[in-house]
Amino acid sequence: MKTYREQYEEYLGFFREALKNECAEMNFRPPVLAESMKYSLLSGGKRVRPVLFFASLEHFGMNYRGETAFPVALECIHTYSLIHDDLPAMDNDDFRRGNPSNHKVFGEAGAILAGDGLLSYASGILLKEAGRSRRHLRAAQFLMEAAGAAGMVAGQSADLIYSGKDAGEEELRFIYEHKTGRLIEAPVRMATILAGGDEEAASAFGRELGLLFQMTDDILDEKGESGKLGKTAGKDRMEGKLTCVKVFGLDGAELLADRTAAKCLSALDAMGGDPFLKELVKSVRERDN
Amino acid sequence: MKTYREQYEEYLGFFREALKNECAEMNFRPPVLAESMKYSLLSGGKRVRPVLFFASLEHFGMNYRGETAFPVALECIHTYSLIHDDLPAMDNDDFRRGNPSNHKVFGEAGAILAGDGLLSYASGILLKEAGRSRRHLRAAQFLMEAAGAAGMVAGQSADLIYSGKDAGEEELRFIYEHKTGRLIEAPVRMATILAGGDEEAASAFGRELGLLFQMTDDILDEKGESGKLGKTAGKDRMEGKLTCVKVFGLDGAELLADRTAAKCLSALDAMGGDPFLKELVKSVRERDN
Repeated sequence: MKTYREQYEEYLGFFREALKNECAEMNFRPPVLAESMKYSLLSGGKRVRPVLFFASLEHFGMNYRGETAFPVALECIHTYSLIHDDLPAMDNDDFRRGNPSNHKVFGEAGAILAGDGLLSYASGILLKEAGRSRRHLRAAQFLMEAAGAAGMVAGQSADLIYSGKDAGEEELRFIYEHKTGRLIEAPVRMATILAGGDEEAASAFGRELGLLFQMTDDILDEKGESGKLGKTAGKDRMEGKLTCVKVFGLDGAELLADRTAAKCLSALDAMGGDPFLKELVKSVRERDN
Repeated sequence: MKTYREQYEEYLGFFREALKNECAEMNFRPPVLAESMKYSLLSGGKRVRPVLFFASLEHFGMNYRGETAFPVALECIHTYSLIHDDLPAMDNDDFRRGNPSNHKVFGEAGAILAGDGLLSYASGILLKEAGRSRRHLRAAQFLMEAAGAAGMVAGQSADLIYSGKDAGEEELRFIYEHKTGRLIEAPVRMATILAGGDEEAASAFGRELGLLFQMTDDILDEKGESGKLGKTAGKDRMEGKLTCVKVFGLDGAELLADRTAAKCLSALDAMGGDPFLKELVKSVRERDN
């Protein structure tokens, strides 16, 4: 029996290999465009979305090694959103995953295009997958809906609008659900679509996990260290970002995160339970980076 | 028998209606996100890509009124590329189609997200269309390939890189073929895929038309008036952009455009000829905006 860590590393190793193979295909001209896309795509990170996808497939007894395209597309989308989010006009962050942000290396124009290129690339993958089966088509559609103007992009927009404003719980929930929630829900839901499982149960779990993920992110921004985070800590407060720490205070936020973790575990039980996913929820709650 | 103008207006009227209906569906929150997307999408323009799509369908004897989704997706992609291109970090243009650029109205962050939203929205449309038939799937794939990091985005990247540099004919051709050419080729090719026609012949025609389109654009930037163009004239020279005017001089560029128009008409003949498309080629060569 593998430990949680061993299993996570197995998924991670498999995903890294798949991503490396995909990147080997990205021989676009001009070379700097491909470089800028790969720079952010290969810069590490926890790869929690691909891991969630693989673990959810295995939860349904499917062989996760047959489905490499979706998690690659998902990570391309996640990465494009980080590149655009770090731009000076947006969150203006000079560091990401411990490295200079894309625009610090390739310039603002280069970073805008790297993001555009990655989103387009992901769409190309999704269209290819859509041709495999009706389930693949539906999973692809779910991801693009979750990533788009009714999903993640809407969350980014709300995040900007409510910064420095007197907004409350309702607006905070909207940001959490869209900015982070939809792309955490997506891999769980997509795997469930492919497996023919209970999609509503999967989404309920994925959405709670998304909320938990962003809460702990905001808590870490407040109390974490930049070195460990790989990005600048304390920025949210400086910029008056609408976070659970701002709305409920640090203690209130910690309490809320505990409650959300508990709800997330109940939702997982309703999905049929899963030892790996259970540990994953706990580790999200307890993470320090 | 309709005149060229009447036929163009018919396509245009039909497309405007389709676009209006699509925009009525865009009720994203926060409202400003939907507003910013629609602001640029509905701000007019010649809609040459949708018209090319409809005309190409009719060329093959198909009812163009049954295919509204692809031209809407195409125009979403074209519009996102203009919004990002106008950003201060890119071409830094304050006007577009006679109106303030997206970022002048919604701010830079808003414009980045409006572009991201439109590209995602287009991808959603393409995935839906992909489910209709194998031909629709292939047409959707062609468009995303043409728009992405091996297509239009690559052209934008090259356009930036070669600005102010000592680059020549080869680099110019790369920019033309990718920045503009691929999204002019796309509607002709997509219609041909749907109709089961000769795809290579369609692409040969579309590519020449794309070259012609960008050449006349560059010539107009050199000698046109800002009022008529709806954007700032003379910017290319100011910024040392790599254009046919820079490489061949104004007279040389005019000559090249004439030669390209002639090649375009030959390619159209090889496609079986088409009175409407023939007039369209001529009007692109002779346009003053």
